[in-house]
Amino acid sequence: MSKKYNDIRESAYEANMQLPKLGLVLFTFGNVSAADRNEGVFAIKPSGVPYEKLSPKKMVIVDFDGNTIEGDLRPSSDTKTHAVLYKHWENINGIVHTHSTYATAWAQTQRDIPIYGTTHADHLTVDVPCAPPMDDDMIKGDYEHETGFQIMNCFKEKGLSYEDVEMILVGNHAPFTWGKTPDKAVYNSAVLESVAQMAYLTEQIKPLTPRMKDALIQKHFERKHGPNSYYGQ
Amino acid sequence: MSKKYNDIRESAYEANMQLPKLGLVLFTFGNVSAADRNEGVFAIKPSGVPYEKLSPKKMVIVDFDGNTIEGDLRPSSDTKTHAVLYKHWENINGIVHTHSTYATAWAQTQRDIPIYGTTHADHLTVDVPCAPPMDDDMIKGDYEHETGFQIMNCFKEKGLSYEDVEMILVGNHAPFTWGKTPDKAVYNSAVLESVAQMAYLTEQIKPLTPRMKDALIQKHFERKHGPNSYYGQ
Amino acid sequence: MSKKYNDIRESAYEANMQLPKLGLVLFTFGNVSAADRNEGVFAIKPSGVPYEKLSPKKMVIVDFDGNTIEGDLRPSSDTKTHAVLYKHWENINGIVHTHSTYATAWAQTQRDIPIYGTTHADHLTVDVPCAPPMDDDMIKGDYEHETGFQIMNCFKEKGLSYEDVEMILVGNHAPFTWGKTPDKAVYNSAVLESVAQMAYLTEQIKPLTPRMKDALIQKHFERKHGPNSYYGQ
Amino acid sequence: MSKKYNDIRESAYEANMQLPKLGLVLFTFGNVSAADRNEGVFAIKPSGVPYEKLSPKKMVIVDFDGNTIEGDLRPSSDTKTHAVLYKHWENINGIVHTHSTYATAWAQTQRDIPIYGTTHADHLTVDVPCAPPMDDDMIKGDYEHETGFQIMNCFKEKGLSYEDVEMILVGNHAPFTWGKTPDKAVYNSAVLESVAQMAYLTEQIKPLTPRMKDALIQKHFERKHGPNSYYGQ
Repeated sequence: MSKKYNDIRESAYEANMQLPKLGLVLFTFGNVSAADRNEGVFAIKPSGVPYEKLSPKKMVIVDFDGNTIEGDLRPSSDTKTHAVLYKHWENINGIVHTHSTYATAWAQTQRDIPIYGTTHADHLTVDVPCAPPMDDDMIKGDYEHETGFQIMNCFKEKGLSYEDVEMILVGNHAPFTWGKTPDKAVYNSAVLESVAQMAYLTEQIKPLTPRMKDALIQKHFERKHGPNSYYGQ
Repeated sequence: MSKKYNDIRESAYEANMQLPKLGLVLFTFGNVSAADRNEGVFAIKPSGVPYEKLSPKKMVIVDFDGNTIEGDLRPSSDTKTHAVLYKHWENINGIVHTHSTYATAWAQTQRDIPIYGTTHADHLTVDVPCAPPMDDDMIKGDYEHETGFQIMNCFKEKGLSYEDVEMILVGNHAPFTWGKTPDKAVYNSAVLESVAQMAYLTEQIKPLTPRMKDALIQKHFERKHGPNSYYGQ
Repeated sequence: MSKKYNDIRESAYEANMQLPKLGLVLFTFGNVSAADRNEGVFAIKPSGVPYEKLSPKKMVIVDFDGNTIEGDLRPSSDTKTHAVLYKHWENINGIVHTHSTYATAWAQTQRDIPIYGTTHADHLTVDVPCAPPMDDDMIKGDYEHETGFQIMNCFKEKGLSYEDVEMILVGNHAPFTWGKTPDKAVYNSAVLESVAQMAYLTEQIKPLTPRMKDALIQKHFERKHGPNSYYGQ
Repeated sequence: MSKKYNDIRESAYEANMQLPKLGLVLFTFGNVSAADRNEGVFAIKPSGVPYEKLSPKKMVIVDFDGNTIEGDLRPSSDTKTHAVLYKHWENINGIVHTHSTYATAWAQTQRDIPIYGTTHADHLTVDVPCAPPMDDDMIKGDYEHETGFQIMNCFKEKGLSYEDVEMILVGNHAPFTWGKTPDKAVYNSAVLESVAQMAYLTEQIKPLTPRMKDALIQKHFERKHGPNSYYGQ
């Protein structure tokens, strides 16, 4: 087992173990990967292995074309989606997929999550995008590979940047999030779940609630992001 | 106490103890059984005994006609339903009954749970069936015995296979799940509860949400099941 | 401190401590009492004392007219309601009051909780009654004393027996439950909260869901209660 | 590090640590401050520091004009809102801000929370007020400073006293609560979240539920507050 992959094995392991602690997964319904840009590979959870039986050395090393480089176990069934995103989005080093309850319910409706408040605007300035389900031939083809392109195409069509918006819903499926680190990607999954729950409740409490105003969106986003941010240390 | 039943006593005990850990039961509102096909019997939770007071030796051994074979305690009041299902469905070795919150709420509406997403399609390709309540004479007769037939009749009428669909809602009552092992049956109960919650939320977020498309249903089911499955190790 | 009250002090303490474990109270928003019919008194939680600071000797001994008999602390502000119910309903020995989330939400609507399924029918054969708010002069008078009569009057008007139905919602306020023991009264509070949540969900999933059929109500109630019951040991 | 601030550092720390225990915050989405009226300062959580890494000495000391007096870390980004409220509302010594789920959902709708039951009336006699979002120029100006004035203006316009009503929703943002002590302010945040959840459920169970009657509101508030209160010890 190559020592040069120890860091990403460790960080993929640690990030995966956060998912059950944050209440984002049931059984094995989620996975996190951690990329090493210098080596051109990422470490990802093995498929169907319960979280309590994971360890760093069980993580599988895969390249950005989806080929397994090192590891005794089969990688996550969603591995090709991770590979496509790492290959095309050069500034991300962590990806998370879960079936968290509220985000998945929104995905099942194929609706974007409207931006209703500052919890949302602290993290992104637009609705959380929902990619439509793929055409049947893409589904019947190289499904997980195509899922990566479906995500990227949705961003292109909506004119979004993956560096500004680090999350998406895949229609009838579930959320994917990413970030500059695996920890940030996990953080984004938890934020998305919270935003999804609040948006659901908002529409129940007041149907036809309007989106929040632009000035407030910009203000909250800029508090946390950009050259004049003043949140954190 | 016959040693030959030790294995099913142990596995029934272990499976029962998972129910409170998974948040699927309040007090004693649930039970799991484990069958031994060679001996023609199953081990089942004793009736009304709190989970924290269970032990393997308190499990009751019952044959497939519902007769108690060994055990000091009265078996679960739902024992005859288990017996009927084991007798007629030869390839199952575990059965679970709970009153888990969301699945029970769906049962109370007598609605099937529509298939809205991949969390559902990873496990079955059709709506989760809901059997109608029984006729009054069946209810007043051998109720738990008839419940087993009500479940099987629902499968016949809908043209479902118990090997493809390992769960059902019994109208105005609650869910039953089963599987090749008691652990798989418990797993199915947790999956059903999650699917029931997501389907509820889906309809709240977007009334009249359509079911997911067939190609996606087939793809996800086949990822986990069948000759070309590639999920897990 | 009279030793003769030690048993009810202990059982009131133990029953009170179950409320936070069962998720039925926030802070001090609940209380349990335990009666000794021979002595004509009950032990009740002191007012506004956090659960983690309770002990058996902090329980207050009160007679059935609401007079404090022994104890250094002021009894629960709801003490007179407990006293009235003990005085008039001779076969109960435990009473619980909580502001549990779902039961309280139903109380705030002043609706009875419809009987939609067997989780409900396992415990009572009718809708969970909701007493209307009192007239203003009763509220401005001896409020907690009158609350006891409001509960009893609701039972009279609906023709209910307190031995068959061990729970009520008080309109715009919250639930009260009772039983032959304090533990049974606590059990009833947890059952009520579960039934209230399931009924809420049922109506969300299918508005205008009909009540369950009579034969099924009777069957499930008689499984657990009455001369031919066969639930439990 | 001045010893004279030790008490407020300690009480701010302890109060902050209650937020995750009460389920009111995700990650760092909340803050508590504790004021010392004699010194004219308050201690507040540092910005963006996870709760598990907090300690009393990490609290930042700030004066009522928002100037940092002592501390190595940057104070909460909401510090100026705290400062404005302490400066103008002389009888409060603790302030809490969270993004708790249900209260935030109400804030996102810009609706006041109607007074539906005694859980609400035990703490305040009016609807929980929701301040509208600020004008764009206030948002683009000294945002957190203006948030304090937005809160005070809402109280003025509605004719409310900050001593009678210790909580507010800020439209499209989230709740703020306060009190005579930091612990009381935290208590109010938990009460608000519970009241917000119950009010949401109330309207789902029965749309157009009327508010509770005045006599009952007054009775419950006076049980806990004012010269003739008889709740607690």
